[in-house]
Amino acid sequence: MKKVRFNIKGKRSVDLIASDGENLLEAARRAGVMIDSPCSGNATCGKCKVKIESGQVNTEKSRHISEEEMANGIVLSCNATIIEDIEVEVPDLASSFVNEMQITDLSNNENKNIKYVRKKMIKEGMTNASRLWSEIIQLPCPSIEDNSADEDRLKLYFKQNLGYEDIAISLNVIKKLPDAFRKNDFLIEVVYLKRREVAEILDVKPAIGEKSVLYGIALDIGTTSVSACLVDMNTNEILTKASMGNAQVKYGADVINRIVYSEKPGGLENLRHAIVDESINNLIEKMVKTVGITKEDIYEVCAAGNTTMNHLLLGLNPDYLRREPFIPAINDIPEMKCAELGINVNPEGKIYLAPSVASYVGGDITAGVFAVPVWMREDFTMLVDLGTNGEIVFGNKDFLMTCACSAGPAFEGGEISCGTRAVPGAIEQVTINDDDLRPFYNTIGHVSPVGICGSGIIDLICEMKRTGIINGKGRMERDLNHPRIKFDEYGIGQYYLYSKELDNGSKDIYITEIDIDSFIKAKGAVFSAIYILMESLDMPIDVLENIYVAGGIGTNLDITNAIALGMLPDIPVEKYFYIGNSSMQGCYLALTLSEGKDKIREISQNMTYMELSVHPTYMDEFISACFIPHTNMNLFPSLEN
Amino acid sequence: MKKVRFNIKGKRSVDLIASDGENLLEAARRAGVMIDSPCSGNATCGKCKVKIESGQVNTEKSRHISEEEMANGIVLSCNATIIEDIEVEVPDLASSFVNEMQITDLSNNENKNIKYVRKKMIKEGMTNASRLWSEIIQLPCPSIEDNSADEDRLKLYFKQNLGYEDIAISLNVIKKLPDAFRKNDFLIEVVYLKRREVAEILDVKPAIGEKSVLYGIALDIGTTSVSACLVDMNTNEILTKASMGNAQVKYGADVINRIVYSEKPGGLENLRHAIVDESINNLIEKMVKTVGITKEDIYEVCAAGNTTMNHLLLGLNPDYLRREPFIPAINDIPEMKCAELGINVNPEGKIYLAPSVASYVGGDITAGVFAVPVWMREDFTMLVDLGTNGEIVFGNKDFLMTCACSAGPAFEGGEISCGTRAVPGAIEQVTINDDDLRPFYNTIGHVSPVGICGSGIIDLICEMKRTGIINGKGRMERDLNHPRIKFDEYGIGQYYLYSKELDNGSKDIYITEIDIDSFIKAKGAVFSAIYILMESLDMPIDVLENIYVAGGIGTNLDITNAIALGMLPDIPVEKYFYIGNSSMQGCYLALTLSEGKDKIREISQNMTYMELSVHPTYMDEFISACFIPHTNMNLFPSLEN
Repeated sequence: MKKVRFNIKGKRSVDLIASDGENLLEAARRAGVMIDSPCSGNATCGKCKVKIESGQVNTEKSRHISEEEMANGIVLSCNATIIEDIEVEVPDLASSFVNEMQITDLSNNENKNIKYVRKKMIKEGMTNASRLWSEIIQLPCPSIEDNSADEDRLKLYFKQNLGYEDIAISLNVIKKLPDAFRKNDFLIEVVYLKRREVAEILDVKPAIGEKSVLYGIALDIGTTSVSACLVDMNTNEILTKASMGNAQVKYGADVINRIVYSEKPGGLENLRHAIVDESINNLIEKMVKTVGITKEDIYEVCAAGNTTMNHLLLGLNPDYLRREPFIPAINDIPEMKCAELGINVNPEGKIYLAPSVASYVGGDITAGVFAVPVWMREDFTMLVDLGTNGEIVFGNKDFLMTCACSAGPAFEGGEISCGTRAVPGAIEQVTINDDDLRPFYNTIGHVSPVGICGSGIIDLICEMKRTGIINGKGRMERDLNHPRIKFDEYGIGQYYLYSKELDNGSKDIYITEIDIDSFIKAKGAVFSAIYILMESLDMPIDVLENIYVAGGIGTNLDITNAIALGMLPDIPVEKYFYIGNSSMQGCYLALTLSEGKDKIREISQNMTYMELSVHPTYMDEFISACFIPHTNMNLFPSLEN
Repeated sequence: MKKVRFNIKGKRSVDLIASDGENLLEAARRAGVMIDSPCSGNATCGKCKVKIESGQVNTEKSRHISEEEMANGIVLSCNATIIEDIEVEVPDLASSFVNEMQITDLSNNENKNIKYVRKKMIKEGMTNASRLWSEIIQLPCPSIEDNSADEDRLKLYFKQNLGYEDIAISLNVIKKLPDAFRKNDFLIEVVYLKRREVAEILDVKPAIGEKSVLYGIALDIGTTSVSACLVDMNTNEILTKASMGNAQVKYGADVINRIVYSEKPGGLENLRHAIVDESINNLIEKMVKTVGITKEDIYEVCAAGNTTMNHLLLGLNPDYLRREPFIPAINDIPEMKCAELGINVNPEGKIYLAPSVASYVGGDITAGVFAVPVWMREDFTMLVDLGTNGEIVFGNKDFLMTCACSAGPAFEGGEISCGTRAVPGAIEQVTINDDDLRPFYNTIGHVSPVGICGSGIIDLICEMKRTGIINGKGRMERDLNHPRIKFDEYGIGQYYLYSKELDNGSKDIYITEIDIDSFIKAKGAVFSAIYILMESLDMPIDVLENIYVAGGIGTNLDITNAIALGMLPDIPVEKYFYIGNSSMQGCYLALTLSEGKDKIREISQNMTYMELSVHPTYMDEFISACFIPHTNMNLFPSLEN
């Protein structure tokens, strides 16, 4: 037994008794100490660095640890074995998660799309109201002659005055009736969900003054990020938005690593706790404070996540999602009480989860298709959602085809040395001077750079290719001899966008050949998925009239550059629309339009899924696409000259 | 602050810090020490005797405490104030509750009625099966081509093979699917409820061998007693029956005293705990052990209780039940998970509670009417349920009228000095010798007498009247000078059925003038209720073709004697049927006939309730009926000579 003390930088210490030979990262997880580990302990991402302050660990050399770092006691925690009592300094990841939490409006694009689509759906016949409603009601006071039970009195009112066949009411609400009715002489406020023939009663209170404002939440549960909007359900106005990293990241960056982790003892519960308590409830807390309301006034949550996220949120065994033939436990999750999942809103509040189509096409995509809205269009439309997984949907109002590919977190800045999500300080646009290879960039919010987000990575690699810094395989030219280009002891090339040395910067921000390789694989996966999907329908690329690009890649995505990299099909850029978080928009629309949820369900049932992982030519197509722009230039006619 | 130690006779001790001047009964309740107190601390019933072993309390003289008892430190705990540190011996009531628990078959009458009614209902078109069902199913194994989610696979099977539009499934069951499906290659057993168009899935397990046996429980929640039958849902056989005192008795013998207690801090929760954990779960535990099954195989509970019992079971504020205009929170309680109420069966098990009609006509009566079955009859039929409350239902297939009266617990042996429920050792039949006034009696089970149950009390009082020991007012003749007749220091007469002195008995069993008075009030309440109900319809008593008498009064109820006492209407005894626990029979029938629950709901909606407590002539009628047999002998023509 060895004593391990984790000193969380600037915060508290955590002590743990570890067994001799225990892995340091696993010991930290046991102790509840958060260490970033996107690759889930495979020593490939290099993000789990910690500093050994006293004592020694067994560790191996790694390309992620410089000699200077090594001398200072920096090790990869996943690559360190405990052999004696130690003290370890770890970065304050938990706080940075909360600090990173964004409170911003939706982007202009997102707002524009929501408004346009909402109007269009109402025009097409959807009811311009949510199903969540409240009503102030004067019930007749009981007497010996009119001695029906409180619940019957309420039921009769709903039947006679509001046209409902019946009411549904849970034990918690029944408990409130006697006192609520009599507090103000049977003048009450009733909060309810308008279901087809049945009103589902969510709350009953004595009516005092005006009708209450009811709130709802649109929630996007991404593998990398979690975002939420707080909506005034009376006006449909988005009052605030917040987002943060998915706290499950500490157990693995992608769904596969998390599924693997879920199989460890307590793993599934840890993952559930991370998404519910550390992520979703954290966001709700923050939004509620910002707007100054109470959680009890939130009665509805419309959420979308991929199939794995749904399984982990519900505590379902996700193991069979990753084993052929890739079967989810459930696609169409029945509505539940938020309380059943541990989500902190009104105890009677409901959560609707957009249904999945398959293991790798989840509710984020069905909600996204609803928002675009592909299902309304006459012309051929595609939705490309660039998250940690890439999902493609193609079709129109008559049919919908879909497939998914594993892109990895590169588009959201994950597994990229200096990658970041699209947060303030993220480098989102890059150009490189032809003459002296000097970079120019813009950051989100025009503040000092903190890292590179997806759109910045695309620009950067595209510019590196254009200026000849890299070749079609993503390898740097060895003979450029430029101060911004360095090669480490393993011979891996790095290009410095921003450096301590050259720019007097506060940190180094660079891209490595390994990063570029990760990106090429990601874009290759997406392009080949699009190609196979179209080919399977015997349709050429140029039938596409609209391509909607969604995901956290960054508002300033340069489509021309993405085409030049061979990431997106070579059709005119006017046909492209970057719409940001389509899944969140779908949730917002489903929250505020009463038939929205049923429509998403209908969409999910009409989507035909194509399993790429067993497709006979997908691997070949993927390999051909792992080149800038592509080994088959016929696919990119506009790039020919 | 005073130290109080409760020594529970033959068991453990409980220590408590009491405040100076605290009431001893209330201190015992705070300490969780059970002391019988039917009158809820009003010093009228004399059942809360305890022995002060050391120290002193402030107490007053009471007719319930003899001088000998007083000398031995016996006090009424409700009448004792703590003034110094004390040790108190209390009887082991909790154990006696469990020991008293009966495991007996239904009586012959009950069995006969159930079989007869069941057959009749099936003949009239009810489905001869419960809605609880299980099925062994071979699902097609998934493949890349057939990659629907586990839940969709199950849904499709139910649609294609069993004709269900949809399935309903809770999160707990969804969690079971992935592993249950794959344990035995998609050969599974599904337990479900057959609802109209939807199968509600309660359990999914890998199928290994034969179909499981599923169990259900019929449960009668009386104010004084709680009874349960464990039923094999495949064969409808009653496997065992158990009953015990309602553990709420320690907080008051009747519903009014319990409602009053519920308003004290923690009172409602104590009452809920007493019925759920101390009574119902106790019975389930016992039955499950007797039959040798596991609780997890019980999937359905059909229960009936009066309106107050339902409120206390659900934790609903019962206060408005006892205040004019006497309004329940709810009559028709939606089906719930047993787990939601804390009832220990399968976590997905459902509980159905028979609906109430009004504050004093509850589910016990609607279930009883279902079982009799009044609602099927052509001729005029009456159900008289003699519980702690007396309820009357009159009608036939065309109409149903009902009313209730407060009889008190006398019919079940409560508030009678030596009263007991109809348990082994209860004196159930009595005759008195004309010449020497010696009693003869039978006990249930032919064992040594332990007390007198309802039917015994009726016989005894009737015989005392016949032999001239008492007059029409229930007063004992003062000049009989008989060893079995004694008068205490307050001048209250007692007749000894069984005594230490005369019969060399192990205890004294007697009846007092106060007991007789309680009984006369109880029978007066019932008879005047019957009278008013018939009078309000302008119908003479002799239209009645059948009178069903239900309740825990005792199998050997002598109807001739009950008529002679003026308790039941004077019609030919052949028209009377004593059917025991009609509420339990209704629960059993609703459990085993799939349309039964809906039928009870329909009955409850068709019942017209008459509120006696505000009826202009009820009080006069009651006073006239408080005489043996009645002040108006025209109502009892057969007794004239």
